[in-house]
Amino acid sequence: MKLATLRDGSRDGALVVVRQDNAVYAPARDIAPTLQNALDRWDEVEPKLRGLSDKLNQRQVSGLPVDVRKLHAPLPRAYEWVDGSAFLNHVRLVRKARNAEPPATLETDPLVYQGGSGVLLGPTDDIFLADTAWGCDFESEVCVLLGDVPQGVKARDAARHVRLLVLANDVSLRNLIPDELAKGFGFFQSKPATAFSPFALTPDELGPAWREGRLHLPLRTIYNGKQVGNPDAGEMHFSFFELLQHIAKTRAFTAGTVLGSGTVSNADRARGISCLAEQRTLETIDTGKPVTPFMKPGDTVEIEMLDAEGKSLFGRISQRVVGT
Amino acid sequence: MKLATLRDGSRDGALVVVRQDNAVYAPARDIAPTLQNALDRWDEVEPKLRGLSDKLNQRQVSGLPVDVRKLHAPLPRAYEWVDGSAFLNHVRLVRKARNAEPPATLETDPLVYQGGSGVLLGPTDDIFLADTAWGCDFESEVCVLLGDVPQGVKARDAARHVRLLVLANDVSLRNLIPDELAKGFGFFQSKPATAFSPFALTPDELGPAWREGRLHLPLRTIYNGKQVGNPDAGEMHFSFFELLQHIAKTRAFTAGTVLGSGTVSNADRARGISCLAEQRTLETIDTGKPVTPFMKPGDTVEIEMLDAEGKSLFGRISQRVVGT
Repeated sequence: MKLATLRDGSRDGALVVVRQDNAVYAPARDIAPTLQNALDRWDEVEPKLRGLSDKLNQRQVSGLPVDVRKLHAPLPRAYEWVDGSAFLNHVRLVRKARNAEPPATLETDPLVYQGGSGVLLGPTDDIFLADTAWGCDFESEVCVLLGDVPQGVKARDAARHVRLLVLANDVSLRNLIPDELAKGFGFFQSKPATAFSPFALTPDELGPAWREGRLHLPLRTIYNGKQVGNPDAGEMHFSFFELLQHIAKTRAFTAGTVLGSGTVSNADRARGISCLAEQRTLETIDTGKPVTPFMKPGDTVEIEMLDAEGKSLFGRISQRVVGT
Repeated sequence: MKLATLRDGSRDGALVVVRQDNAVYAPARDIAPTLQNALDRWDEVEPKLRGLSDKLNQRQVSGLPVDVRKLHAPLPRAYEWVDGSAFLNHVRLVRKARNAEPPATLETDPLVYQGGSGVLLGPTDDIFLADTAWGCDFESEVCVLLGDVPQGVKARDAARHVRLLVLANDVSLRNLIPDELAKGFGFFQSKPATAFSPFALTPDELGPAWREGRLHLPLRTIYNGKQVGNPDAGEMHFSFFELLQHIAKTRAFTAGTVLGSGTVSNADRARGISCLAEQRTLETIDTGKPVTPFMKPGDTVEIEMLDAEGKSLFGRISQRVVGT
């Protein structure tokens, strides 16, 4: 099942069900007005949404044409946005870029940060950049949207709390990060609003590509019209289930919490990059200094994931950087 | 105007207006079903809520008796919980406690962290502590609830975005903090669910005590039945307006965002403490080692703020620590 949120002038938009080929949608307002509302009442709502989805896929309901520009993020605002950093190749490279050591517990203790979740960007929303000196970068990621999660949940029991999957562009302001992390309280100004893919998919929609808490498909990033990366998102060191156990150690989470993988990154250089910081670090290793600049107004970034048949699963994040 | 959220079995509770003497409330469901909904439509809703509040205060509406145990946090879940650390005496003491230096920019660049906001505790909810070795502590704070905040707002324009004030107990797990901050991504496991005061007050309700983005009244903390602190919350180094300018530098905030002062702390030792970490640091300075243990099951903490006449403004946070 594929879900999306249509812009309708309200803060949270209107829930719609999308046909498997991404071409048409059916309004779901009679089942649940918003995706947050559906996640709040998932057990009751899910069978009804699946019924509508089945009718749409079997062409028993005609649907209305999907225009991705009219879609919000699946959750235009969420109660929490927790982002892991589960691709260790990424952690090693970006820390090298800022002359910081990876933590000693890198392989045993997941890195996560608490992100801002009150204002999330839709798949075609501009990235507003007030100052190019901030060093604006994209980060292509996979995320899960959670149901209610009790404190203390274990990885082996985590699958039941995963409701939906989405893609994200975790926009980062690289040049603000070193000073901010030096203060000891984590990212804040250096993480502006995150953008999300048009469609949110239930795990079953991904077939065998979703297994053991990892999504085993390449995540494609196109920067200024050129593909710069296509790494396998299945190379996560910590699975989403392990991340969930980690974050739930000392507190519970409400339905609709977004949990991210961190920047998808493979040890195999031929798979390319999912953020410019990695590119710049590789350039520094090879030539002594970074060559690729960070993003500037006019730049575009596109992120999507294709299935084995080349169909876009989540639709395409397609953003442009705009200045003041 | 005083607002509160009644437990009614729903996730977000029911909005009520509370009489100035905290004794009775009137349901506000016909005006706005929840506090979040009221904050989403504040310009339209505020005059109606004030009308009801006036009737209640003038005894034109009788109201129902307030039972604080039946109240949620004013926002049982919020879209963001951003906590400053604007009392520099606190920053200096707790960093000394963990042998960490305060940042060089302590007096010019505010410290803030992004907290978990999906599960917030009501004023009388238990603090569930799975492991006493985590070093459970309270932190008594003042917070503002914001309206919509555009990116780039300046301190001089910030007053208009402050909708309500509340008190908070920013529960902290002290013994998890050093290892977590060493990883560089800020607090996560070390900050479990935060608790909030029964009542949320509009700024005008505080009279001249609310000025220039600071609340100039003592914040009282009672630990296991004994008053341990009564420091002046007006001693904030950075005002709420300055904190707001800081957090809005690179992104916007949605209505209902909670912004905290950090642990209220005065340079004058006679004013006592608002967290055990400060007490333990003072003991270490005086005697070479901490004497006061962190909280254990059965301990209680109460937090409230009295006005000049001794009336409780926000009602009392009154929590008990419970184990497994």
